[in-house]
Amino acid sequence: MGRALVAALVEHADLRLGAAIGRPGADYLGEDAGRLAGVGDLGVVVCDRLDAVLDDFDVLIEFAPADIALKHLHAAAASGRAVVLGSTGFGAEQQAEIDALARSIPLVQAPNMSVGVNVLTAFLPQIVAALGEDYDVEILEAHHGQKRDAPSGTALQLGRAVAAGRGVDLDAVACWDRNGAPGPRQPGSIGFASLRAADVVGEHSVWLAGAGERLELTHRAGSRRNFAEGALRAASWVRQRSPGHYDMQDVLGLRAAPRVR
Amino acid sequence: MGRALVAALVEHADLRLGAAIGRPGADYLGEDAGRLAGVGDLGVVVCDRLDAVLDDFDVLIEFAPADIALKHLHAAAASGRAVVLGSTGFGAEQQAEIDALARSIPLVQAPNMSVGVNVLTAFLPQIVAALGEDYDVEILEAHHGQKRDAPSGTALQLGRAVAAGRGVDLDAVACWDRNGAPGPRQPGSIGFASLRAADVVGEHSVWLAGAGERLELTHRAGSRRNFAEGALRAASWVRQRSPGHYDMQDVLGLRAAPRVR
Amino acid sequence: MGRALVAALVEHADLRLGAAIGRPGADYLGEDAGRLAGVGDLGVVVCDRLDAVLDDFDVLIEFAPADIALKHLHAAAASGRAVVLGSTGFGAEQQAEIDALARSIPLVQAPNMSVGVNVLTAFLPQIVAALGEDYDVEILEAHHGQKRDAPSGTALQLGRAVAAGRGVDLDAVACWDRNGAPGPRQPGSIGFASLRAADVVGEHSVWLAGAGERLELTHRAGSRRNFAEGALRAASWVRQRSPGHYDMQDVLGLRAAPRVR
Amino acid sequence: MGRALVAALVEHADLRLGAAIGRPGADYLGEDAGRLAGVGDLGVVVCDRLDAVLDDFDVLIEFAPADIALKHLHAAAASGRAVVLGSTGFGAEQQAEIDALARSIPLVQAPNMSVGVNVLTAFLPQIVAALGEDYDVEILEAHHGQKRDAPSGTALQLGRAVAAGRGVDLDAVACWDRNGAPGPRQPGSIGFASLRAADVVGEHSVWLAGAGERLELTHRAGSRRNFAEGALRAASWVRQRSPGHYDMQDVLGLRAAPRVR
Repeated sequence: MGRALVAALVEHADLRLGAAIGRPGADYLGEDAGRLAGVGDLGVVVCDRLDAVLDDFDVLIEFAPADIALKHLHAAAASGRAVVLGSTGFGAEQQAEIDALARSIPLVQAPNMSVGVNVLTAFLPQIVAALGEDYDVEILEAHHGQKRDAPSGTALQLGRAVAAGRGVDLDAVACWDRNGAPGPRQPGSIGFASLRAADVVGEHSVWLAGAGERLELTHRAGSRRNFAEGALRAASWVRQRSPGHYDMQDVLGLRAAPRVR
Repeated sequence: MGRALVAALVEHADLRLGAAIGRPGADYLGEDAGRLAGVGDLGVVVCDRLDAVLDDFDVLIEFAPADIALKHLHAAAASGRAVVLGSTGFGAEQQAEIDALARSIPLVQAPNMSVGVNVLTAFLPQIVAALGEDYDVEILEAHHGQKRDAPSGTALQLGRAVAAGRGVDLDAVACWDRNGAPGPRQPGSIGFASLRAADVVGEHSVWLAGAGERLELTHRAGSRRNFAEGALRAASWVRQRSPGHYDMQDVLGLRAAPRVR
Repeated sequence: MGRALVAALVEHADLRLGAAIGRPGADYLGEDAGRLAGVGDLGVVVCDRLDAVLDDFDVLIEFAPADIALKHLHAAAASGRAVVLGSTGFGAEQQAEIDALARSIPLVQAPNMSVGVNVLTAFLPQIVAALGEDYDVEILEAHHGQKRDAPSGTALQLGRAVAAGRGVDLDAVACWDRNGAPGPRQPGSIGFASLRAADVVGEHSVWLAGAGERLELTHRAGSRRNFAEGALRAASWVRQRSPGHYDMQDVLGLRAAPRVR
Repeated sequence: MGRALVAALVEHADLRLGAAIGRPGADYLGEDAGRLAGVGDLGVVVCDRLDAVLDDFDVLIEFAPADIALKHLHAAAASGRAVVLGSTGFGAEQQAEIDALARSIPLVQAPNMSVGVNVLTAFLPQIVAALGEDYDVEILEAHHGQKRDAPSGTALQLGRAVAAGRGVDLDAVACWDRNGAPGPRQPGSIGFASLRAADVVGEHSVWLAGAGERLELTHRAGSRRNFAEGALRAASWVRQRSPGHYDMQDVLGLRAAPRVR
């Protein structure tokens, strides 16, 4: 993810790489971050101590594992740095710490930084409500063969957006599995299906099907680049903000989007 | 289209077939409309004279060719009937007549009655604006081999929705053809591509592609049924309205949808 | 299915409708088959007794439920008529009767008459073998909400074709369901996923995914028309054959297709 | 492409990186090839002189520009090394030199090394012939916005495979553009359409559409990795061969595949 961030960052004229933090013990420590990302020397070597470079940046973009990320957040908050947080896997207590830190600094937190996924999530409730109750909803996702859980967290996020558009609870209407003889489709249900294959980065498709027609709203991630782009968009946005806890809907200007009737 | 309307109508508890008008000289005149539609006798025989059945319905659903449709509209308006108008091919003068009639009766006019297409059209400007200028837009459509024009009217409608979301004029940014050596893609352009094959009813896909990701917003019409459903939805909606000229955005409750910043 | 067959048949110059058999008690008995199919009078009224029309045709195209179909087959065989059999749901004993009848008449039997599906089935083993063991295979199918079983029989047919190309047994490698925390993908497994939505006629997609690429071999049925076309293709083919039990691979000239090394 | 090759190679137990040649003057010369590819040190530094490392490898995998590639080929041939050649852009005279060299060494040449694309190309003629003349063929391709030509070379390769299956010449039946009012589809024509968007690596879809159904045979390249895998597969295959000029059909064991009746 670090390489993807650096490679994306050099395309943004309004952003500059101030520092690069790597995993302690990694063999790339001490090397130039740009060279590692394949974009040529940037004059920034990768180090493993955030406190050594706190003066070198305005916004911390954090994708490290939960424990390390939390330490970094405390250090960044103590220095008044803004944060873009893409790490996942925080326990309830850790999340409470993050919530508290977000009272003193501007912090964008999003488990999926993809702009496309978050735009789709934002409009799904309104689209579903406009189509009406008679449209059947199915959500298909595909990921690489190493993924251990199904359906994906993003598929669940999209499912919750559909459920919100209908004013129902996802768990009450979800159909997780159709293998065997499930009988006719339950009206109002939201079906999920998962494919696992090779190195597929991540694809999600929401089917909204009525008599004689369907909408297929599909997102395809081709590389980690799209998560990097979302994180950089969040970084540009957050450095001008007041302290607070934000998400990608805020970054994309969709927070105030009118919710469905 | 008549058969598709009747077959769809019997599934709607709030609607009843009052009359059925066919093409003058057709061999099915005098037969039961339900039987022709394959849904069993409905007690309504197809006739070819609208004025003979004016007392038998509240809403006229009109898909006849332009000239006949216009005659029907005058008759319906004289009797104060609401109208759902799916006919196309009106000249400027004929359209002016329609506009005038819509001052005395409630009239929904839409060249494409599909609910899915119109919902997609309604949200595209906002989606495009949320993604931002850096996303490349391409519009792909596929239709049966008998279609004579390309791109389809619906593809153009979707293209205008994208252009509206960017505050530009479609004609100024459209790329109609890429065959040969067109060189690199023009930033901000909207590309169109058309496939023609067998009996494909109609498919449209809007690609919104950024670095490492894309949204594909696809509509597939599987049969005329979806146009019938849209027309019936319009019929249910329009009979309660004041006189006026409406479209599917009104029917779907999306007219007041906030336009893009 | 009868209407779809008649509507398709009139487009084939080498075929003529000789007779039309309907369900006993149906309200359309006695009506012209062409009119019912929406293609104009053909001079053939629908009756409910096969024995009354045995002299009027060369090939019986049979899609009735298993019990009725079997009776028809015996009558057709007694008169030496060829048969195209698309009915499903035969018990083992009934199937043995069919096998026996096929020793005296030419008989094409296929649970799915679609030309496209059968062509895909025929080439899948060779395609899978050419790609090699490292490609992950996933099979996705979508059908209307009334379908009671999953995955579809056609998805299983495609899965068996893939398994044949690898020299393995489908049941030994199939992954029927991925909901929950299934862990990493099992190498060599064949995954299945099912969507159910509205009136989708039938769609099947075979994913063959390797490092950095995938083939998606997709079949979309838009209407029953494609089953009718397959049955008519079988009818044209079978009337010239010696007695024997054939399937769509024979009809399509793919039976002799070299199997995979 | 060099990085993709090295990253893919370390996953293949039967292959070992012997040497790595870079562009003269490149800033990465002298660095470890594995480190540059992000897979850790491999003990092979990138150099810019093929003659210095001729003893260090069995098979040359060549993707350099035409002029440089040709020099490398002469050196490899002089030392009896096998070659996998993915470079493109050779003039007629240069191609004649390559043909001549392939009389003394085993040489695999393929403008598109993708296994999936080449498998699809190999079976398309047979699939098209099995479906028959009534199926409409359309070929859709999508690439990144920097691509200067359209349709892609791979789309043309697929089109020629379809034409071969029908025994016609592609140029005689191709429909390159449908913009405007092209009128009804020409029977037997092969349509092409191109999309250009963001960083799409390369997608190709062949539609084979008949009454009520269609096959969509789609290839998606997600990264250069699939070209690297094809080149490595060719490298494993070619080192055991007698001198000769081969292509990916040979590598994949599909050269002897029976051509269409």
